[in-house]
Amino acid sequence: MEKFEVKAYGTQSAEAPLKQLSIDRREATAKDVEIDILFCGVCHSDLHTARNDWGGTVYPAVPGHEIVGRVTKVGSEVSKFKVGDLAAVGCLVDSCRECASCKQDLEQYCIPGFTGTYNGKDKHLGGRTFGGYSEKVVVDEHFVLKLPENLDLAAVAPLLCAGITTWSPLRHWNVGKDSTVAVVGLGGLGHMAIKLAKALGAHVTLFSRSPGKEKDALELGADQVIISTDPAQIQGVAGKFDLIVDTVPYVHNLNEYVPTLNINGTLVLVGYLGGLDPLLNSVPMIMGRKSVAGSLIGGIAETQEMLDFCGEHNIVSEIEVIKMQEINEAYERMLKSDVRYRFVIDMASLKNN
Amino acid sequence: MEKFEVKAYGTQSAEAPLKQLSIDRREATAKDVEIDILFCGVCHSDLHTARNDWGGTVYPAVPGHEIVGRVTKVGSEVSKFKVGDLAAVGCLVDSCRECASCKQDLEQYCIPGFTGTYNGKDKHLGGRTFGGYSEKVVVDEHFVLKLPENLDLAAVAPLLCAGITTWSPLRHWNVGKDSTVAVVGLGGLGHMAIKLAKALGAHVTLFSRSPGKEKDALELGADQVIISTDPAQIQGVAGKFDLIVDTVPYVHNLNEYVPTLNINGTLVLVGYLGGLDPLLNSVPMIMGRKSVAGSLIGGIAETQEMLDFCGEHNIVSEIEVIKMQEINEAYERMLKSDVRYRFVIDMASLKNN
Repeated sequence: MEKFEVKAYGTQSAEAPLKQLSIDRREATAKDVEIDILFCGVCHSDLHTARNDWGGTVYPAVPGHEIVGRVTKVGSEVSKFKVGDLAAVGCLVDSCRECASCKQDLEQYCIPGFTGTYNGKDKHLGGRTFGGYSEKVVVDEHFVLKLPENLDLAAVAPLLCAGITTWSPLRHWNVGKDSTVAVVGLGGLGHMAIKLAKALGAHVTLFSRSPGKEKDALELGADQVIISTDPAQIQGVAGKFDLIVDTVPYVHNLNEYVPTLNINGTLVLVGYLGGLDPLLNSVPMIMGRKSVAGSLIGGIAETQEMLDFCGEHNIVSEIEVIKMQEINEAYERMLKSDVRYRFVIDMASLKNN
Repeated sequence: MEKFEVKAYGTQSAEAPLKQLSIDRREATAKDVEIDILFCGVCHSDLHTARNDWGGTVYPAVPGHEIVGRVTKVGSEVSKFKVGDLAAVGCLVDSCRECASCKQDLEQYCIPGFTGTYNGKDKHLGGRTFGGYSEKVVVDEHFVLKLPENLDLAAVAPLLCAGITTWSPLRHWNVGKDSTVAVVGLGGLGHMAIKLAKALGAHVTLFSRSPGKEKDALELGADQVIISTDPAQIQGVAGKFDLIVDTVPYVHNLNEYVPTLNINGTLVLVGYLGGLDPLLNSVPMIMGRKSVAGSLIGGIAETQEMLDFCGEHNIVSEIEVIKMQEINEAYERMLKSDVRYRFVIDMASLKNN
């Protein structure tokens, strides 16, 4: 298969910092879109993969799955894009396209497994896929998104992961103007959950474990902030929420939140993978037909729907733009939650180096 | 308030066996129906309440919330029943009638709390309500169900708790002819879940932890039995079930079952109140938008719907009829799961004593 070299930023081991390297991209096949990357958001998953926190990382690893750019080449059968168009790529670059999930536009739940934008099994070149910390990416047009023209391109990038990860549960659980939604955690995902839920018309509450986030939360669109460590405040919202979007990425006590669900309400985990510790108590679940669920990113059609919605409602992420060369410091700051609310890499810094 | 004495069976303490005693019933008020009790099913909750296993039992306690009988008196404003009609009472005899849940026919989730058929706060006579281990019961007509004429009356009784407890989640999660349903546990609730899911048109699987239940399960209507301790069998049903109705009343490992849910599937707990031990793993939930939920009995309108459905489909419980005087032995046998699948008391044994 024909291929070409591009500059990228990645790591050769779990312990090494990211540095510049060279990777191969395939020449666009009939269905492919070649994209010149302008901006790439920095997700916690990037760091986890670089450092092999989840196991399974194959090196060299090039992270990045919040990709925004311009089309520089299209294959002969591409119909959705032409050279010069804005384009975006999120967490998925391929799936089986044939299973029950794929046929329902739920590529994120592809039964044989989707191909992740990085560290996925590359069906074309072999080895693993390389992500958006690079000059260019080549992706089947089915997995390439169209971008609204009216939004700041750097600030759009995090919509491709943080945006869709919170949009998908909001839509699946039918959030609209009569809904009461709570968000747990005010980070990259949480701040998008607030903006999107608010734009869908919901009454939005942020749960915070400590004071100090009120101002930011209200500016982002929240209607109120509840300090979840204050029993009186928690009691005051007992039975209130139709949906709780829980974005916290580490183990935490769900029993604080389940009693604040309305009858038939759902708490959906989008950040934490692991055992629910302390033990999840079934009593409030049974006494109000309440659910605890999980949700993973979103499908391609749903991602396009979210981007179009953000264009109509002028919604982007709150970001801090960095240079590619600053990625290792950015990771250290992310580990201290020292970012409001998402780092985005200006890829000109890589091209010009 | 006018009242009259009836014979009943109950207990004066957690340690004492049940024995005959006398209780008061109110004279029927304008909205009340007075019912001569013909049969009363024996639920695990009866035993838990008699022995104060959950705390909160006030003595004397008279259990019984699977009540079938004939109307002997109606109040001046009663419109649904006349003297001589068949009638039934389940787990609820009152609720606030005004909260959001009650207004949606979800009296079981009444926000101020429903009045249980036994050990509930009696709004009329004070003290606690007394259940169906008695000659007669007097209940507001809203909480009295109509019975199909074509069913065996003794075998109908367990529908009022075991039936509705499994019917409600089957209906809430839209089980129909294209559904795949699994049932965990083959007891009073589990055997009803199989019958009802099958009659709704679903493909039905029983999960059992040990061999030996195949014949019974298939006779009840199951399409297959999966031995959940056999990894090959569990793997063979990975991703299969739209709904798992988990009727097991003691702590058990849900992580065996969650991976067998289909995308968007739900495991609903109807039997176990407590901490989910071992820790519930969020990974398969997130990777397939799967939910773990709880469900409590059912509302009055839904109970009537279930009884009508059972009349149309000739569905009753599998029962063993006992005399009132045999209740203490029946409790001991229930503790050993030595019943297929529900004890029902023939109340003639109390009246004639």
